[in-house]
Amino acid sequence: MVCSEVVMNSKNDNIIWHDTQITKDDRAVRTMQKPCVLWFTGLSGSGKSTIANAVEKILYENGNFTYLLDGDNVRHGLNSDLSFDEKSRVENIRRVGEVSKLFVESGLIVLTAFISPFREDREMVRTLLEDGEFVEIFIDTPLEVCESRDPKGLYKKARAGEIKEFTGISSPYEKPKKVDIYIKNDNISIEKACEQIIDYMIKHSYIKWRED
Amino acid sequence: MVCSEVVMNSKNDNIIWHDTQITKDDRAVRTMQKPCVLWFTGLSGSGKSTIANAVEKILYENGNFTYLLDGDNVRHGLNSDLSFDEKSRVENIRRVGEVSKLFVESGLIVLTAFISPFREDREMVRTLLEDGEFVEIFIDTPLEVCESRDPKGLYKKARAGEIKEFTGISSPYEKPKKVDIYIKNDNISIEKACEQIIDYMIKHSYIKWRED
Repeated sequence: MVCSEVVMNSKNDNIIWHDTQITKDDRAVRTMQKPCVLWFTGLSGSGKSTIANAVEKILYENGNFTYLLDGDNVRHGLNSDLSFDEKSRVENIRRVGEVSKLFVESGLIVLTAFISPFREDREMVRTLLEDGEFVEIFIDTPLEVCESRDPKGLYKKARAGEIKEFTGISSPYEKPKKVDIYIKNDNISIEKACEQIIDYMIKHSYIKWRED
Repeated sequence: MVCSEVVMNSKNDNIIWHDTQITKDDRAVRTMQKPCVLWFTGLSGSGKSTIANAVEKILYENGNFTYLLDGDNVRHGLNSDLSFDEKSRVENIRRVGEVSKLFVESGLIVLTAFISPFREDREMVRTLLEDGEFVEIFIDTPLEVCESRDPKGLYKKARAGEIKEFTGISSPYEKPKKVDIYIKNDNISIEKACEQIIDYMIKHSYIKWRED
Protein backbone atom coordinates (compact mmCIF):
# COMPACT_ATOMS: atom_id res chain seq x y z
CA MET A 1 0.00 0.00 0.00
CA VAL A 2 0.99 3.61 -0.50
CA CYS A 3 0.38 6.33 2.05
CA SER A 4 0.52 8.93 -0.71
CA GLU A 5 0.65 12.63 -0.10
CA VAL A 6 -0.01 12.66 3.61
CA VAL A 7 3.61 11.89 4.23
CA MET A 8 5.19 14.57 2.13
CA ASN A 9 7.98 16.34 3.91
CA SER A 10 7.97 13.97 6.79
CA LYS A 11 10.55 11.31 6.25
CA ASN A 12 11.98 11.52 9.69
CA ASP A 13 11.23 13.09 13.02
CA ASN A 14 13.86 15.77 12.83
CA ILE A 15 11.54 17.95 10.84
CA ILE A 16 8.20 19.21 11.95
CA TRP A 17 5.40 16.88 11.07
CA HIS A 18 2.64 18.37 9.05
CA ASP A 19 -0.87 17.69 10.29
CA THR A 20 -3.40 17.04 7.60
CA GLN A 21 -6.94 16.85 8.75
CA ILE A 22 -10.13 15.44 7.36
CA THR A 23 -12.71 18.17 7.77
CA LYS A 24 -16.38 18.16 8.62
CA ASP A 25 -17.11 19.00 4.98
CA ASP A 26 -15.02 16.06 3.76
CA ARG A 27 -17.06 13.75 5.94
CA ALA A 28 -20.38 15.15 4.76
CA VAL A 29 -19.25 14.59 1.18
CA ARG A 30 -18.53 10.98 2.02
CA THR A 31 -21.94 10.37 3.60
CA MET A 32 -23.72 12.31 0.83
CA GLN A 33 -26.11 14.09 3.18
CA LYS A 34 -26.32 17.28 5.18
CA PRO A 35 -25.49 16.16 8.73
CA CYS A 36 -27.82 17.37 11.46
CA VAL A 37 -29.42 16.55 14.78
CA LEU A 38 -33.06 15.54 14.74
CA TRP A 39 -33.88 16.48 18.32
CA PHE A 40 -37.11 14.84 19.46
CA THR A 41 -38.72 16.38 22.52
CA GLY A 42 -41.96 15.56 24.32
CA LEU A 43 -43.47 13.88 27.35
CA SER A 44 -42.63 10.37 28.45
CA GLY A 45 -44.81 8.05 26.37
CA SER A 46 -45.38 10.69 23.68
CA GLY A 47 -43.86 8.48 21.01
CA LYS A 48 -40.44 10.14 20.63
CA SER A 49 -38.42 6.92 20.57
CA THR A 50 -40.91 5.07 18.41
CA ILE A 51 -41.03 7.80 15.79
CA ALA A 52 -37.26 8.37 15.95
CA ASN A 53 -36.63 4.66 15.41
CA ALA A 54 -39.07 4.56 12.50
CA VAL A 55 -37.48 7.63 10.90
CA GLU A 56 -34.04 6.11 11.33
CA LYS A 57 -35.18 2.94 9.58
CA ILE A 58 -36.50 4.94 6.64
CA LEU A 59 -33.27 6.92 6.42
CA TYR A 60 -31.25 3.71 6.56
CA GLU A 61 -33.28 2.20 3.75
CA ASN A 62 -32.73 5.42 1.82
CA GLY A 63 -28.97 4.91 2.06
CA ASN A 64 -28.31 7.53 4.73
CA PHE A 65 -25.85 7.32 7.61
CA THR A 66 -27.47 7.75 10.98
CA TYR A 67 -27.22 7.14 14.70
CA LEU A 68 -29.79 7.28 17.45
CA LEU A 69 -29.06 8.50 20.96
CA ASP A 70 -31.56 7.73 23.69
CA GLY A 71 -31.76 6.84 27.34
CA ASP A 72 -30.82 3.25 26.61
CA ASN A 73 -27.40 3.90 25.15
CA VAL A 74 -26.57 7.11 27.02
CA ARG A 75 -27.88 6.77 30.55
CA HIS A 76 -26.21 3.39 31.06
CA GLY A 77 -22.92 4.50 29.54
CA LEU A 78 -21.65 8.04 29.10
CA ASN A 79 -24.08 9.48 31.64
CA SER A 80 -24.14 6.60 34.10
CA ASP A 81 -22.59 8.91 36.71
CA LEU A 82 -25.58 11.25 36.64
CA SER A 83 -28.68 11.09 38.82
CA PHE A 84 -32.04 12.64 38.03
CA ASP A 85 -31.93 15.84 40.05
CA GLU A 86 -32.17 19.13 38.20
CA LYS A 87 -28.42 19.71 37.91
CA SER A 88 -27.90 16.21 36.56
CA ARG A 89 -30.73 16.57 34.07
CA VAL A 90 -29.18 19.74 32.70
CA GLU A 91 -25.79 18.02 32.48
CA ASN A 92 -27.43 15.01 30.82
CA ILE A 93 -28.80 17.19 28.05
CA ARG A 94 -25.58 19.18 27.73
CA ARG A 95 -23.55 16.01 27.17
CA VAL A 96 -26.07 14.64 24.70
CA GLY A 97 -25.81 17.96 22.88
CA GLU A 98 -22.02 17.83 22.81
CA VAL A 99 -21.98 14.22 21.62
CA SER A 100 -24.56 15.09 18.96
CA LYS A 101 -22.23 17.81 17.77
CA LEU A 102 -19.39 15.29 17.43
CA PHE A 103 -21.68 13.01 15.42
CA VAL A 104 -22.67 15.88 13.14
CA GLU A 105 -18.97 16.62 12.61
CA SER A 106 -18.46 12.97 11.73
CA GLY A 107 -20.98 13.36 8.89
CA LEU A 108 -23.93 11.52 10.39
CA ILE A 109 -27.55 12.42 10.90
CA VAL A 110 -28.10 11.86 14.61
CA LEU A 111 -31.54 11.37 16.13
CA THR A 112 -32.01 12.02 19.84
CA ALA A 113 -34.98 10.98 21.92
CA PHE A 114 -35.00 12.61 25.35
CA ILE A 115 -37.88 14.31 27.16
CA SER A 116 -35.68 17.45 27.43
CA PRO A 117 -38.50 19.39 29.12
CA PHE A 118 -36.74 22.73 29.55
CA ARG A 119 -36.67 25.27 26.74
CA GLU A 120 -33.41 26.75 27.98
CA ASP A 121 -31.59 23.41 27.75
CA ARG A 122 -32.81 22.75 24.22
CA GLU A 123 -31.77 26.25 23.17
CA MET A 124 -28.35 25.66 24.74
CA VAL A 125 -27.92 22.62 22.49
CA ARG A 126 -29.03 24.66 19.48
CA THR A 127 -26.28 27.18 20.17
CA LEU A 128 -23.64 24.41 20.17
CA LEU A 129 -24.44 23.72 16.55
CA GLU A 130 -24.29 25.74 13.39
CA ASP A 131 -27.33 27.24 11.72
CA GLY A 132 -29.60 24.57 10.32
CA GLU A 133 -27.86 21.70 12.10
CA PHE A 134 -30.33 21.53 14.97
CA VAL A 135 -33.81 20.39 13.98
CA GLU A 136 -36.18 20.47 16.92
CA ILE A 137 -39.12 18.10 16.63
CA PHE A 138 -41.87 18.47 19.17
CA ILE A 139 -44.04 15.40 19.59
CA ASP A 140 -47.11 17.00 21.10
CA THR A 141 -49.10 14.21 22.67
CA PRO A 142 -51.74 15.05 25.29
CA LEU A 143 -50.72 14.11 28.81
CA GLU A 144 -53.80 11.90 29.22
CA VAL A 145 -52.81 9.88 26.15
CA CYS A 146 -49.24 9.45 27.42
CA GLU A 147 -50.52 8.50 30.83
CA SER A 148 -52.99 5.99 29.46
CA ARG A 149 -50.19 4.35 27.45
CA ASP A 150 -47.68 4.46 30.33
CA PRO A 151 -45.40 1.91 28.59
CA LYS A 152 -42.92 1.77 31.45
CA GLY A 153 -45.38 2.22 34.31
CA LEU A 154 -43.72 5.51 35.23
CA TYR A 155 -46.85 7.67 35.39
CA LYS A 156 -48.37 5.23 37.84
CA LYS A 157 -45.31 5.50 40.05
CA ALA A 158 -45.23 9.29 39.71
CA ARG A 159 -48.90 9.55 40.73
CA ALA A 160 -48.14 7.36 43.73
CA GLY A 161 -45.31 9.72 44.66
CA GLU A 162 -42.66 7.06 44.08
CA ILE A 163 -40.94 9.20 41.43
CA LYS A 164 -40.31 12.82 42.23
CA GLU A 165 -40.12 15.65 39.71
CA PHE A 166 -41.76 13.62 36.97
CA THR A 167 -42.34 15.65 33.82
CA GLY A 168 -46.02 16.42 33.28
CA ILE A 169 -47.01 15.38 36.80
CA SER A 170 -44.76 17.08 39.32
CA SER A 171 -42.36 18.93 37.02
CA PRO A 172 -43.22 21.15 34.05
CA TYR A 173 -42.83 20.44 30.38
CA GLU A 174 -42.06 23.67 28.58
CA LYS A 175 -43.46 23.52 25.07
CA PRO A 176 -41.24 25.02 22.38
CA LYS A 177 -42.28 28.50 21.33
CA LYS A 178 -40.86 28.05 17.87
CA VAL A 179 -40.18 24.59 16.61
CA ASP A 180 -38.75 23.22 13.38
CA ILE A 181 -41.18 20.34 13.07
CA TYR A 182 -44.42 20.20 15.03
CA ILE A 183 -46.13 16.85 15.27
CA LYS A 184 -49.60 16.93 16.70
CA ASN A 185 -49.73 13.38 17.97
CA ASP A 186 -53.34 13.15 18.93
CA ASN A 187 -54.41 10.32 16.76
CA ILE A 188 -51.71 10.30 14.12
CA SER A 189 -50.20 7.17 12.57
CA ILE A 190 -46.46 6.59 12.71
CA GLU A 191 -46.58 6.67 8.94
CA LYS A 192 -47.91 10.22 8.90
CA ALA A 193 -45.45 11.39 11.54
CA CYS A 194 -42.52 9.92 9.61
CA GLU A 195 -43.75 11.43 6.38
CA GLN A 196 -43.87 14.86 7.94
CA ILE A 197 -40.25 14.56 9.10
CA ILE A 198 -38.87 12.99 5.91
CA ASP A 199 -40.64 15.59 3.77
CA TYR A 200 -39.07 18.34 5.86
CA MET A 201 -35.63 16.77 5.44
CA ILE A 202 -36.00 16.52 1.69
CA LYS A 203 -37.37 20.05 1.40
CA HIS A 204 -34.47 21.47 3.43
CA SER A 205 -31.88 19.40 1.52
CA TYR A 206 -30.70 17.29 4.46
CA ILE A 207 -31.23 14.22 2.32
CA LYS A 208 -32.04 13.28 -1.21
CA TRP A 209 -34.84 10.86 -1.72
CA ARG A 210 -33.69 7.81 -3.61
CA GLU A 211 -36.49 6.38 -5.69
CA ASP A 212 -36.47 2.61 -6.09
CA MET B 1 -42.77 8.94 -0.35
CA VAL B 2 -43.72 5.69 1.29
CA CYS B 3 -42.69 4.73 4.79
CA SER B 4 -43.09 1.04 3.89
CA GLU B 5 -42.98 -1.75 6.40
CA VAL B 6 -41.96 0.20 9.46
CA VAL B 7 -45.53 1.28 9.96
CA MET B 8 -47.19 -2.09 9.83
CA ASN B 9 -49.83 -2.51 12.50
CA SER B 10 -49.57 1.06 13.63
CA LYS B 11 -52.25 3.08 11.99
CA ASN B 12 -53.30 4.86 15.12
CA ASP B 13 -52.20 5.31 18.67
CA ASN B 14 -54.84 3.08 20.21
CA ILE B 15 -52.67 0.09 19.52
CA ILE B 16 -49.17 -0.46 20.80
CA TRP B 17 -46.52 0.94 18.53
CA HIS B 18 -43.93 -1.50 17.41
CA ASP B 19 -40.33 -0.35 17.73
CA THR B 20 -38.08 -1.35 14.92
CA GLN B 21 -34.43 -0.66 15.43
CA ILE B 22 -31.44 -0.34 13.19
CA THR B 23 -28.77 -2.47 14.79
CA LYS B 24 -25.02 -2.10 15.13
CA ASP B 25 -24.63 -4.83 12.51
CA ASP B 26 -26.92 -2.97 10.09
CA ARG B 27 -24.72 0.11 10.43
CA ALA B 28 -21.50 -1.84 9.89
CA VAL B 29 -23.01 -3.29 6.72
CA ARG B 30 -23.75 0.21 5.50
CA THR B 31 -20.21 1.49 6.15
CA MET B 32 -18.66 -1.72 4.75
CA GLN B 33 -15.98 -1.96 7.42
CA LYS B 34 -15.50 -3.54 10.82
CA PRO B 35 -16.00 -0.63 13.24
CA CYS B 36 -13.38 -0.24 15.94
CA VAL B 37 -11.49 2.23 18.11
CA LEU B 38 -7.89 2.94 17.17
CA TRP B 39 -6.71 4.08 20.59
CA PHE B 40 -3.42 5.99 20.32
CA THR B 41 -1.49 6.33 23.55
CA GLY B 42 1.88 7.90 24.28
CA LEU B 43 3.66 10.91 25.72
CA SER B 44 2.81 14.48 24.81
CA GLY B 45 4.70 15.22 21.60
CA SER B 46 5.09 11.53 20.75
CA GLY B 47 3.25 11.95 17.46
CA LYS B 48 -0.15 10.47 18.40
CA SER B 49 -2.25 13.20 16.77
CA THR B 50 -0.05 13.50 13.72
CA ILE B 51 -0.10 9.77 13.01
CA ALA B 52 -3.81 9.49 13.84
CA ASN B 53 -4.60 12.32 11.41
CA ALA B 54 -2.47 10.75 8.71
CA VAL B 55 -4.11 7.34 9.21
CA GLU B 56 -7.53 8.95 9.07
CA LYS B 57 -6.67 10.61 5.78
CA ILE B 58 -5.58 7.29 4.28
CA LEU B 59 -8.77 5.61 5.52
CA TYR B 60 -10.85 8.42 4.09
CA GLU B 61 -9.17 8.09 0.72
CA ASN B 62 -9.79 4.37 0.91
CA GLY B 63 -13.53 5.03 1.21
CA ASN B 64 -13.84 4.31 4.93
CA PHE B 65 -16.00 6.13 7.45
CA THR B 66 -14.04 7.56 10.34
CA TYR B 67 -13.96 10.10 13.11
CA LEU B 68 -11.10 11.43 15.22
CA LEU B 69 -11.46 12.36 18.88
CA ASP B 70 -8.74 14.42 20.51
CA GLY B 71 -8.22 17.15 23.01
CA ASP B 72 -9.33 19.79 20.55
CA ASN B 73 -12.84 18.54 20.01
CA VAL B 74 -13.41 16.90 23.41
CA ARG B 75 -11.77 19.09 26.03
CA HIS B 76 -13.49 22.25 24.77
CA GLY B 77 -16.86 20.59 24.43
CA LEU B 78 -18.05 17.42 26.11
CA ASN B 79 -15.35 17.52 28.79
CA SER B 80 -15.14 21.27 29.26
CA ASP B 81 -16.38 20.80 32.83
CA LEU B 82 -13.34 18.72 33.76
CA SER B 83 -10.04 19.96 35.18
CA PHE B 84 -6.72 18.11 35.05
CA ASP B 85 -6.55 16.55 38.50
CA GLU B 86 -6.41 12.78 38.74
CA LYS B 87 -10.15 12.24 39.17
CA SER B 88 -10.88 14.46 36.17
CA ARG B 89 -8.31 12.71 34.03
CA VAL B 90 -9.89 9.35 34.78
CA GLU B 91 -13.33 10.77 33.98
CA ASN B 92 -11.95 12.34 30.79
CA ILE B 93 -10.78 8.94 29.54
CA ARG B 94 -13.98 7.22 30.70
CA ARG B 95 -16.12 9.62 28.69
CA VAL B 96 -13.89 9.35 25.63
CA GLY B 97 -14.24 5.58 25.96
CA GLU B 98 -18.03 5.77 26.20
CA VAL B 99 -18.27 8.13 23.24
CA SER B 100 -15.94 5.88 21.25
CA LYS B 101 -18.31 3.02 21.98
CA LEU B 102 -21.22 5.02 20.59
CA PHE B 103 -19.22 5.76 17.45
CA VAL B 104 -18.37 2.08 17.04
CA GLU B 105 -22.09 1.29 17.36
CA SER B 106 -22.78 3.87 14.68
CA GLY B 107 -20.56 1.93 12.28
CA LEU B 108 -17.52 4.20 12.25
CA ILE B 109 -13.84 3.61 12.81
CA VAL B 110 -12.95 6.08 15.54
CA LEU B 111 -9.39 7.23 16.20
CA THR B 112 -8.55 8.70 19.59
CA ALA B 113 -5.42 10.64 20.46
CA PHE B 114 -5.01 11.13 24.20
CA ILE B 115 -1.93 10.60 26.35
CA SER B 116 -4.00 8.19 28.51
CA PRO B 117 -0.98 7.41 30.70
CA PHE B 118 -2.58 4.92 33.06
CA ARG B 119 -2.86 1.25 32.13
CA GLU B 120 -5.94 0.78 34.27
CA ASP B 121 -7.85 3.51 32.43
CA ARG B 122 -7.01 2.10 29.03
CA GLU B 123 -8.04 -1.38 30.17
CA MET B 124 -11.31 0.09 31.47
CA VAL B 125 -12.05 1.40 27.98
CA ARG B 126 -11.18 -1.98 26.49
CA THR B 127 -13.79 -3.63 28.72
CA LEU B 128 -16.47 -1.23 27.45
CA LEU B 129 -16.06 -2.66 23.99
CA GLU B 130 -16.46 -6.07 22.47
CA ASP B 131 -13.56 -8.34 21.60
CA GLY B 132 -11.51 -6.92 18.77
CA GLU B 133 -13.16 -3.51 18.85
CA PHE B 134 -10.40 -1.86 20.90
CA VAL B 135 -7.08 -1.55 19.11
CA GLU B 136 -4.43 -0.09 21.38
CA ILE B 137 -1.61 1.66 19.54
CA PHE B 138 1.40 2.65 21.59
CA ILE B 139 3.51 5.39 20.05
CA ASP B 140 6.75 4.78 21.87
CA THR B 141 8.80 7.93 21.46
CA PRO B 142 11.70 8.56 23.86
CA LEU B 143 11.01 11.30 26.37
CA GLU B 144 14.03 13.29 25.21
CA VAL B 145 12.70 13.32 21.64
CA CYS B 146 9.25 14.48 22.81
CA GLU B 147 10.82 17.11 25.01
CA SER B 148 13.06 18.39 22.24
CA ARG B 149 10.04 18.75 19.96
CA ASP B 150 7.83 20.29 22.65
CA PRO B 151 5.33 21.55 20.05
CA LYS B 152 3.11 23.29 22.60
CA GLY B 153 5.85 24.41 24.97
CA LEU B 154 4.38 22.21 27.69
CA TYR B 155 7.58 20.42 28.70
CA LYS B 156 9.27 23.73 29.28
CA LYS B 157 6.42 24.81 31.55
CA ALA B 158 6.44 21.46 33.32
CA ARG B 159 10.19 21.68 33.97
CA ALA B 160 9.65 25.18 35.34
CA GLY B 161 7.01 23.80 37.68
CA GLU B 162 4.25 25.77 36.02
CA ILE B 163 2.36 22.59 35.13
CA LYS B 164 1.92 20.02 37.84
CA GLU B 165 1.56 16.29 37.31
CA PHE B 166 2.84 16.44 33.77
CA THR B 167 3.19 13.00 32.21
CA GLY B 168 6.81 11.94 31.81
CA ILE B 169 8.12 14.71 34.07
CA SER B 170 6.16 14.74 37.30
CA SER B 171 3.61 12.02 36.64
CA PRO B 172 4.25 8.51 35.30
CA TYR B 173 3.47 7.10 31.90
CA GLU B 174 2.62 3.43 32.25
CA LYS B 175 3.69 1.61 29.11
CA PRO B 176 1.25 -1.05 27.91
CA LYS B 177 2.27 -4.58 28.83
CA LYS B 178 0.52 -6.05 25.85
CA VAL B 179 -0.38 -3.82 22.97
CA ASP B 180 -2.15 -4.40 19.68
CA ILE B 181 0.15 -2.22 17.60
CA TYR B 182 3.55 -1.13 18.83
CA ILE B 183 5.19 1.76 17.04
CA LYS B 184 8.81 2.38 17.92
CA ASN B 185 8.94 6.03 17.04
CA ASP B 186 12.63 6.66 17.35
CA ASN B 187 13.39 7.78 13.87
CA ILE B 188 10.43 6.45 11.94
CA SER B 189 8.69 8.28 9.09
CA ILE B 190 4.96 8.94 9.28
CA GLU B 191 4.71 6.81 6.18
CA LYS B 192 6.14 3.77 7.95
CA ALA B 193 3.98 4.31 11.03
CA CYS B 194 0.83 4.57 8.89
CA GLU B 195 1.79 1.51 6.90
CA GLN B 196 2.15 -0.52 10.07
CA ILE B 197 -1.34 0.47 11.22
CA ILE B 198 -3.05 0.08 7.86
CA ASP B 199 -1.44 -3.31 7.33
CA TYR B 200 -2.73 -4.42 10.73
CA MET B 201 -6.23 -3.23 9.85
CA ILE B 202 -6.23 -5.09 6.56
CA LYS B 203 -4.79 -8.25 8.11
CA HIS B 204 -7.43 -8.23 10.86
CA SER B 205 -10.24 -7.47 8.40
CA TYR B 206 -11.20 -4.06 9.80
CA ILE B 207 -10.98 -2.68 6.30
CA LYS B 208 -10.56 -3.87 2.76
CA TRP B 209 -7.89 -2.19 0.73
CA ARG B 210 -9.32 -0.64 -2.38
CA GLU B 211 -6.81 -0.71 -5.19
CA ASP B 212 -7.00 2.23 -7.55
